[in-house]
Formats: sequence, structure tokens, C-alpha cells
Amino acid sequence: MNANDRSHSVVFPLGEEVKSENFSGRVWMKMLTSIESECPVGNVTFEPGCRNSWHTHGGGQVLLVTGGRGYYQEWGQPARQLQAGDVVQIPPHAKHWHGASKDSWFVHVFVLVNPEKGPTSWLEPVSDDDYCILE
Amino acid sequence: MNANDRSHSVVFPLGEEVKSENFSGRVWMKMLTSIESECPVGNVTFEPGCRNSWHTHGGGQVLLVTGGRGYYQEWGQPARQLQAGDVVQIPPHAKHWHGASKDSWFVHVFVLVNPEKGPTSWLEPVSDDDYCILE
Repeated sequence: MNANDRSHSVVFPLGEEVKSENFSGRVWMKMLTSIESECPVGNVTFEPGCRNSWHTHGGGQVLLVTGGRGYYQEWGQPARQLQAGDVVQIPPHAKHWHGASKDSWFVHVFVLVNPEKGPTSWLEPVSDDDYCILE
Repeated sequence: MNANDRSHSVVFPLGEEVKSENFSGRVWMKMLTSIESECPVGNVTFEPGCRNSWHTHGGGQVLLVTGGRGYYQEWGQPARQLQAGDVVQIPPHAKHWHGASKDSWFVHVFVLVNPEKGPTSWLEPVSDDDYCILE
């Protein structure tokens, strides 16, 4: 990280770097409640250009953006640009991705809703073609 | 609000002032998801000295502190001091209060966990004696 990034705007801890094929670049995560709890809450920090693959949640998810600039997109819909203070309610089973813009770090808290209703299912990566047209 | 307060540290919208006998002073709330949703999320901003009355939640609650300085206390336990980045997991039916310190605004997001398991039940105010000993 360098002095020009937006990671200084984080409110919650950065946590540990996540090594996963479901992210296109470097990403850090800190669970804020237990992953086993009835309401798992965590903080995710994406480096510029990093986004997760398309995926679904059995019970849905809420995103609370605390810093940087990024996107949320549902399958078949235009991408929505996000910045600090924005909130996304992701319906159960909605195929979607989220992540940073090309030129900014991006930080959000996630709340996993009713995780007992089903797991997170990871699908294909967001194509470079689909990502690169975003402004 | 004046230039010395901590409310500038808020990430999420202030919302509307809440007029309720369950708060000892001025407080503002903005729902970030629908109050009817399976996972109600909202932002609460307390003026200095303002706290809520003792209360319980049927399904529990998570607090995510985004600004200022305040407290969380469970019945029979010492108060815990809170600042930005702190997280509180409130068990179902635990009698508790939260609010600002005497000299600072206090801002937190709340996540109501499993609200279908029971309502929020409001009890007696936190006494001035109990509050005034806090540092």
C-alpha cells in the first residue's frame, strides 16, 4: 500500500490477506464476529483492480461500504458504482460480484444474512472484458 | 452540532432525529436496510451524554462503531469503552445499554440479528449515578 491509496479510510481492522482463486487480486479480510455465529460480519479490503468471482449466497448479504471506490453488479444488470456510505442488499441466490475500481482501493463490511439457508456458491470469474468497460 | 464534535467521522447518513423516551438526549437514526427486512441494519448517532435505556433484543444485536467515543454495558458487568473500529456482539435477551460518553458524539451501525425470534423490550433508564461514574 502507498500514500495515494484509500485504505487509510478503513474503520475496521484490515485482517489477513486472503489467498483464494475466487479473487482476481490481493484482498484482506477480518471477521468482526465469529464465522460460526448466526450473523457473520466481516471487513474486506480490495486492492485496486481486485474483484471477486460471480457468486451467490443462500440467505443473501448486506454490504456496508466504508472506504474507497468500487462496484456491485448483479447478473444481467449494469454495475453500480459504490463509495463510502453506500449500502447494498443482495437477495438470496442473486448471482453477483463486488470489488474495487481500477484506480482505487475499496473497503466494505459484509453481513451474511441467514447463513443457515444455504452456502456461498462460487462461480466463474468476472471477465476482463466485462470489468474493463467500467468507468 | 459544532466543529468540535466527532460526528464528522460518520460514514453512513445521519438520518432523522428520533423523539423517544428510551433515549436520555438527542439521537439520530437512519435505517440502511428496511426495518421489515430479515436483517435490519441502521446507523445511530448520539449527542454527547446521550444513551439509551436498558433494553433487550429477542434475537441479539451486533454494534459496529464508526465514530466518536461511547460505552456498552451489560447488566451486572462493568461498562466497556468503545471507539471507531470496535464491535459488540449482544446475546439474545441480554439486558444492556449503549450510548455516548459525556464529552463526545458516538456513532454506530447496528445489525438486528434474527428479529423474528422476538422484539426489542425497553426497560428503565440508566441512572445518572451509574452513568456519571464512567470515565
